[in-house]
Amino acid sequence: MPANPTLYAYLRGEILPYDQAFLHVSDLSIQRGYGIFDFLKVENGQPLFMEHYLDRFYHSAQLMELAIPLERSALQEAVFHLIDKNNLPLSGIKMILTGGYSLDGYQPVEPNLMIVQQPVTMPTQEQLQKGFEIITHEYVRDIPAAKTINYSVGIKLLSQIKAAGADDVLYHQGCVVSEFPRANFFIVKQDDTVVTAAQDVLKGITRKNVLEIAGRTFKAEEGTITLQDIDQAKEAFLTSTTKRVMPVVKMDGYAIGDGTPGPVTLALLEELLKLEKHSAQR
Amino acid sequence: MPANPTLYAYLRGEILPYDQAFLHVSDLSIQRGYGIFDFLKVENGQPLFMEHYLDRFYHSAQLMELAIPLERSALQEAVFHLIDKNNLPLSGIKMILTGGYSLDGYQPVEPNLMIVQQPVTMPTQEQLQKGFEIITHEYVRDIPAAKTINYSVGIKLLSQIKAAGADDVLYHQGCVVSEFPRANFFIVKQDDTVVTAAQDVLKGITRKNVLEIAGRTFKAEEGTITLQDIDQAKEAFLTSTTKRVMPVVKMDGYAIGDGTPGPVTLALLEELLKLEKHSAQR
Repeated sequence: MPANPTLYAYLRGEILPYDQAFLHVSDLSIQRGYGIFDFLKVENGQPLFMEHYLDRFYHSAQLMELAIPLERSALQEAVFHLIDKNNLPLSGIKMILTGGYSLDGYQPVEPNLMIVQQPVTMPTQEQLQKGFEIITHEYVRDIPAAKTINYSVGIKLLSQIKAAGADDVLYHQGCVVSEFPRANFFIVKQDDTVVTAAQDVLKGITRKNVLEIAGRTFKAEEGTITLQDIDQAKEAFLTSTTKRVMPVVKMDGYAIGDGTPGPVTLALLEELLKLEKHSAQR
Repeated sequence: MPANPTLYAYLRGEILPYDQAFLHVSDLSIQRGYGIFDFLKVENGQPLFMEHYLDRFYHSAQLMELAIPLERSALQEAVFHLIDKNNLPLSGIKMILTGGYSLDGYQPVEPNLMIVQQPVTMPTQEQLQKGFEIITHEYVRDIPAAKTINYSVGIKLLSQIKAAGADDVLYHQGCVVSEFPRANFFIVKQDDTVVTAAQDVLKGITRKNVLEIAGRTFKAEEGTITLQDIDQAKEAFLTSTTKRVMPVVKMDGYAIGDGTPGPVTLALLEELLKLEKHSAQR
């Protein structure tokens, strides 16, 4: 168990040591994988873009017909309380909401809410300079708009990613691409238009921030990205809370653009870092 | 919590009271819905068709690249031990295997195995005489051949089933039907051929038994069933461990056949009951 006795968690209304945070096996996440979550980054006690992550958490809950047992202000307070108590320099806060201690192992009941905080590591300069190599896989997530806990396909693909010597897998249906298991996808076209997939994706908070930043300097849009569009793109990158903006330089063994991290990608990362610095929530 | 202090469970190598069976929140079922399970019925101390359920459990584990921590004989012994200790007249044994206490909340580690036993209720005479009304939904499960714990779509559809006054939901893709969230589907054609869907289904043990039984008297086959085939069918039914053979009399508001449980369906149920009586495992 990845227990760290100095860390605390929130579980079903209580703050308790993380290594004592257990759920009964009747919980619907264990029985039926039924739950949602969200994940935000905390730097020096400041949760970044917290309002957006809370918006999405409540939206996912609504889509999956689960009621979050705390009002938004109380949830925010619980998060702040944990942040203060754990006092980590750089960390992630994960809020998980499950279908509860189901009586029949199928029907949702009163949901179980937990909040855990763990240190995170961000991409190194070396990773950024190298960029990611990716493979592709035909798949659309079950309920793309909801951040559910279902990662069966993504996790099952880990061995294929590794076997290919790649870093991640991009989902597509037919020739249209959507997203990574845990990140959004962007391309930079030859005319410097920045495009991210519009359909069948989880709307990432970093995706939203990068669209906004890109729109200041370039044409930026949500649209359709085909595998052919990627072949013809100048640059490609992925976005996520922990990866920020990560260049994608190779797909299924073929170079994207000139096969190195591109200037538009790196400029957007610079701008995102500035935006993060200004997003203190309290 | 549905705790019954007189029941015992198996959890990570230990036999302990069911109400003390907890998993740490780092478990990959809670973090990412990553796990498999299987479920078999026990009557008067006799697990029914146990070898088939164990075969499938090991097969699902292999498909999801999870290693069951017990050899087959040791797993069987643990199941027998629980059955003897709990001493229930009619129950279900559920074996769940998860991705384990993941260090990073994504990568599977040493799996966690648990076995729980709970009383089950079988269909009543009244339910059998009435039959099931069903609705349809376009969906194919992620990894149909594996009995994963992912029921996000099935559980999300519970409110639609209820709103329609129906009993279950049949998945289809285009005009081809596959399965229910927790049961297989059969039709009886005008020439008394008994057909069940071949593709994109979990291969149910009751499905296998019913195919075998049906083959003794009728033509019985795995094949393609379209929505049009159902409109033209004489009878339809579903099969599962706890529903056995349940007539399906109405789909999306329209009667199937004459809208009542059919003679072939009921004959197959009779034969299944006889087969269950002869399937004692020890």
